[in-house]
Amino acid sequence: METKFKNNTIYYHRNPTSGTSMEINSEAKWKRPNDVKVQIKALGICGSDVDHFKPMVIGHECAGIIKDIGSNVKSLAVGDRVALEPGISCQTCNFRKNGTYNLCRKMKFFGSPPTNGSLANQVVHPANLVFKLPDSMSLEEGAMCEPLSVGVHACRRAGVNPDTRVLIFGAGPIGLVTMLAARAFGAPRIVTADVDHYRLSIAKDLDADDTVQASTNIQDVGEEVLNIHKVMGESVDISFDCVGFDKTMSTALTATRAGGKVCLVGLGQSQMTIPLVAAAAREVDVIGIFRYRNTWPLCIELLRTGKIDVKPLITHRYKFTQEDVEKAFETSANGGNAIKVMFNL
Amino acid sequence: METKFKNNTIYYHRNPTSGTSMEINSEAKWKRPNDVKVQIKALGICGSDVDHFKPMVIGHECAGIIKDIGSNVKSLAVGDRVALEPGISCQTCNFRKNGTYNLCRKMKFFGSPPTNGSLANQVVHPANLVFKLPDSMSLEEGAMCEPLSVGVHACRRAGVNPDTRVLIFGAGPIGLVTMLAARAFGAPRIVTADVDHYRLSIAKDLDADDTVQASTNIQDVGEEVLNIHKVMGESVDISFDCVGFDKTMSTALTATRAGGKVCLVGLGQSQMTIPLVAAAAREVDVIGIFRYRNTWPLCIELLRTGKIDVKPLITHRYKFTQEDVEKAFETSANGGNAIKVMFNL
Amino acid sequence: METKFKNNTIYYHRNPTSGTSMEINSEAKWKRPNDVKVQIKALGICGSDVDHFKPMVIGHECAGIIKDIGSNVKSLAVGDRVALEPGISCQTCNFRKNGTYNLCRKMKFFGSPPTNGSLANQVVHPANLVFKLPDSMSLEEGAMCEPLSVGVHACRRAGVNPDTRVLIFGAGPIGLVTMLAARAFGAPRIVTADVDHYRLSIAKDLDADDTVQASTNIQDVGEEVLNIHKVMGESVDISFDCVGFDKTMSTALTATRAGGKVCLVGLGQSQMTIPLVAAAAREVDVIGIFRYRNTWPLCIELLRTGKIDVKPLITHRYKFTQEDVEKAFETSANGGNAIKVMFNL
Amino acid sequence: METKFKNNTIYYHRNPTSGTSMEINSEAKWKRPNDVKVQIKALGICGSDVDHFKPMVIGHECAGIIKDIGSNVKSLAVGDRVALEPGISCQTCNFRKNGTYNLCRKMKFFGSPPTNGSLANQVVHPANLVFKLPDSMSLEEGAMCEPLSVGVHACRRAGVNPDTRVLIFGAGPIGLVTMLAARAFGAPRIVTADVDHYRLSIAKDLDADDTVQASTNIQDVGEEVLNIHKVMGESVDISFDCVGFDKTMSTALTATRAGGKVCLVGLGQSQMTIPLVAAAAREVDVIGIFRYRNTWPLCIELLRTGKIDVKPLITHRYKFTQEDVEKAFETSANGGNAIKVMFNL
Repeated sequence: METKFKNNTIYYHRNPTSGTSMEINSEAKWKRPNDVKVQIKALGICGSDVDHFKPMVIGHECAGIIKDIGSNVKSLAVGDRVALEPGISCQTCNFRKNGTYNLCRKMKFFGSPPTNGSLANQVVHPANLVFKLPDSMSLEEGAMCEPLSVGVHACRRAGVNPDTRVLIFGAGPIGLVTMLAARAFGAPRIVTADVDHYRLSIAKDLDADDTVQASTNIQDVGEEVLNIHKVMGESVDISFDCVGFDKTMSTALTATRAGGKVCLVGLGQSQMTIPLVAAAAREVDVIGIFRYRNTWPLCIELLRTGKIDVKPLITHRYKFTQEDVEKAFETSANGGNAIKVMFNL
Repeated sequence: METKFKNNTIYYHRNPTSGTSMEINSEAKWKRPNDVKVQIKALGICGSDVDHFKPMVIGHECAGIIKDIGSNVKSLAVGDRVALEPGISCQTCNFRKNGTYNLCRKMKFFGSPPTNGSLANQVVHPANLVFKLPDSMSLEEGAMCEPLSVGVHACRRAGVNPDTRVLIFGAGPIGLVTMLAARAFGAPRIVTADVDHYRLSIAKDLDADDTVQASTNIQDVGEEVLNIHKVMGESVDISFDCVGFDKTMSTALTATRAGGKVCLVGLGQSQMTIPLVAAAAREVDVIGIFRYRNTWPLCIELLRTGKIDVKPLITHRYKFTQEDVEKAFETSANGGNAIKVMFNL
Repeated sequence: METKFKNNTIYYHRNPTSGTSMEINSEAKWKRPNDVKVQIKALGICGSDVDHFKPMVIGHECAGIIKDIGSNVKSLAVGDRVALEPGISCQTCNFRKNGTYNLCRKMKFFGSPPTNGSLANQVVHPANLVFKLPDSMSLEEGAMCEPLSVGVHACRRAGVNPDTRVLIFGAGPIGLVTMLAARAFGAPRIVTADVDHYRLSIAKDLDADDTVQASTNIQDVGEEVLNIHKVMGESVDISFDCVGFDKTMSTALTATRAGGKVCLVGLGQSQMTIPLVAAAAREVDVIGIFRYRNTWPLCIELLRTGKIDVKPLITHRYKFTQEDVEKAFETSANGGNAIKVMFNL
Repeated sequence: METKFKNNTIYYHRNPTSGTSMEINSEAKWKRPNDVKVQIKALGICGSDVDHFKPMVIGHECAGIIKDIGSNVKSLAVGDRVALEPGISCQTCNFRKNGTYNLCRKMKFFGSPPTNGSLANQVVHPANLVFKLPDSMSLEEGAMCEPLSVGVHACRRAGVNPDTRVLIFGAGPIGLVTMLAARAFGAPRIVTADVDHYRLSIAKDLDADDTVQASTNIQDVGEEVLNIHKVMGESVDISFDCVGFDKTMSTALTATRAGGKVCLVGLGQSQMTIPLVAAAAREVDVIGIFRYRNTWPLCIELLRTGKIDVKPLITHRYKFTQEDVEKAFETSANGGNAIKVMFNL
């Protein structure tokens, strides 16, 4: 690992051989009239950041302050506190045209190779992906719009509303933001399942109506479904699998009512062995999720109005120094009681 | 196996010990004001009929002639030629109330234990599940409304329309009716995959734009997807897996474009090992199907207007005698070149 | 007006000549195995009740206590406190089959001629339209499920969710329950417009983020839209017109953003003169509402969990005596500061 | 009127004072890497062209041949025969992001002031709005993708499919393309109403199952609805009003079944007096249409496969000379038996 200081800009690299880290930050790029330059001030670590052992800048959950704006930019001004949507889609493919731009194959996404991330002092980004924060919102909350967006997109695609009782597998960061989003979408009852007792206690403290202690043993599916139904008290209309293993999907598919939906958010296991036919024959649909689209304005609104409070998710904070960067990644990777690890730059 | 003749009514039983076969046909039941009595004249054999080794009357793809009507029945008259929707849902559950009555847990469905089937000379059925056939439609076509309904329901749930290019796995009866329905829903391009060369030739003759020779080897998925994409020429928007095995679902999930849908119609394998996460991460949804709902009027309209022609699917015809019944089931079970085996009573 | 006492049952009639009032309450009818007999304990007056000058029993917003149950009824027991969904659809039409049973043409609806209403000591009703109340809910709240259902159905049809800012015309009972429902469906911002200052103050007290003082002058549309946009602060995604006049619809159609929706709930004026083309050319859709479907379980859940509080809407209470009945109708008809007038029987 | 010849480019102006006509065609603009230069070869006249008495180039229904391509363009090559989608939306507004880009307020649309039209020898256009035609399709058919897009978009928004019987008001160009699109979307029965006998005969020849002779007298609504129901034979599920007057909307709202939709396509009358409440109280929704989005690939597919044939709509052809231009506009404006007037450049 290495931290580079160059041109008044600090870049963090997981591997010192990178030569591409300048790309998105270079002054040369800073000519485009629709871009803004943002001083990054808060950045959360995502599990995918820890996994990327590429020689590149990581990070995509970020917020900061506008330092400069392109000649066409009217919606933002220097000094604005902003959150950044990290993915730049192409402007011309069918996905972009029909509104599902998150599926664009040419997406340039912070920290997704070969695009550098935003764990840097400054980044340049298109103004239409940069959203002004209200005064009442902190920059950390701004950075949290990114993980919250995953939960919001999942709830939108699955159709959570006051008619849908929700079961969530996983009380890690994504399971928790999905829970918070489901509540904001009106879910009248939310039950969270996890193998980790501590995480379940956090889910309960945050907003879960009830929790279920799960096992990793695939043999337990039948019993666990009975238990879930008992705890839920009524039918499970929508399940979110924020883990993504045989055990969680099997339980989700079995526990969800006929005509309900299972939304697969977690990506634990590439090949899954699951009772899909029995679920399909009850018209339980499986809904897939890839990141999010058009979520920042809603996330900001939900945080501004207090309908969602993400502050309790931020369990650890670090500075942007060589020493702290290494500690931060260790904390995030080793789990323990960390939910969301945040850099304050 | 046995055929019973009793009270002017012939019942076919796969096992002579049945004592329940009278239930739906008994004169005692023939008091309800909203029922009609139908003389069954055409009945198709479904794969599920062949699988039921219960001591009961099988059969649920049927059409016939009204022999008598209850005192409240205004929509039908004695002598009307009719097709029968085989499932009687309860009137009060939430599924019934919200229009997804096919998911009603108390459904009484012809030939689904413990409810007897309609392979009988006469059956009594609620008038609202009995649909008058236009003069131009044969009773055999009336009986074909049942399998066609599966294809229609699948196309409705998956959202087939002129914007969706369709891939179908399986060129058996259900794969073929799904193909015919997809065309009627406007699918501009339909490619059918199957392992059986003869069945593919039937698909091609009927309406497939092109076909793909598939293998049963799970190792072939990658290559088969390449081949499908080449044959399709464009993206696969919706796949129908009318087989339901690891191989077909893996290929369907991989071949379908980001944001597309895979509709699981075939129920081949209870536990499936499939690359679900990769599909979900491209927002490929999996849509499940259970029978159908509200399909008879549409099926009759599609057949009446010639938008769908099911006659070529009827490859074998038998009479309702002891000897023919046994031959019919052998033909249906042994496959060979049989697509749909039909009784003429 | 007249109140009849007969067979241990009190019937209220607006006109003494009625001979049909016994129909739904007669002992003769009390044979059906799927019905229950309910002692009505709370009944709210709806504007439509006041309008019906027919010689019949009025009332359809009601709750009570189960006195007897039919032989097939398992879900309810004598003594249960219940709310009643007032409309009995036929069981066989296409509307019933596809889940839009509220559109059934043969609907028998309490107090909708020629069907008598439920302002009576006892009524007999199908068990599947009778919903048990949790202990924490009062019978008055049970009766309020009926008007609340209108708001819930409107929000469902219009698609209210956390992404939709809502404008509501009318702060009468229906405007107010629509507001409460919109909040429960996640609307982040709700602005209510009315001509009546007092009603606006109630809307504000209940849950409106802001209010707009409206006029009845059609000339004011342009200015009022500017004002609404200023008060809303952002675009209007969905408007509910709970009044239904040229002025309100014209304002709603003009104020709603391109791609938004106007839901017409109020039925003020049969012929409307409105700028529909300009709205259609911005893809503003007009959504119609007729009563509700499948709303009682949700209303009970929303009231039980406290997500919606309807108690402040009940401004006047009366007993079921000749004298009080007349006062109650006067209060309801004359408006003044009455929102919801409730009988306690 | 005037025709300008300049720089190897002919511009047609309705008013000789225009100084803006060069804008979109100027060589100066021809620097952008994602644009292509197209030699216009076929251009249809739209009613809106005839209405524009602005000093500008009109025309937006066009097809031509690629003369040059920008440095980034990979999907097209010089010599390709192409159809042009005429509207350039901004890249950053919420409408663009969520896929409803036709509602973008900054749209630059051929021939919509102040943007010049495409009735010119050459135009420069973004490559992603330029669609290659298959060899089997003529350039005239390419130009017809534009009006056909209106019909396709209307059918998509209204949800036409094999379950929807369709009533169309107006047998002018837009009514006819809506009819053709409705058929391609699977509508089983289409009835067209118009006041003009000749136009009805064209509708019948093209694809209408039946026609209704309409009047302009608002008093005739009741009788006309009866007649429509008799001719339709069944319920009207979706009506398209491609005229847009009190009479047509009143008839459409009344004739459409409960739970159906009326799609307002024609923009005849800015203030409409209509029985909207009665329709809303039967949950008949009114769907608005503005141009189209993402329609060219589908239109090309429908024309290529012969599912739609627009050639019979082209009733008059003119060359791009001073004399012919004037004749063409006279023909188009005066109506008579002209459906679509086409320039061959």
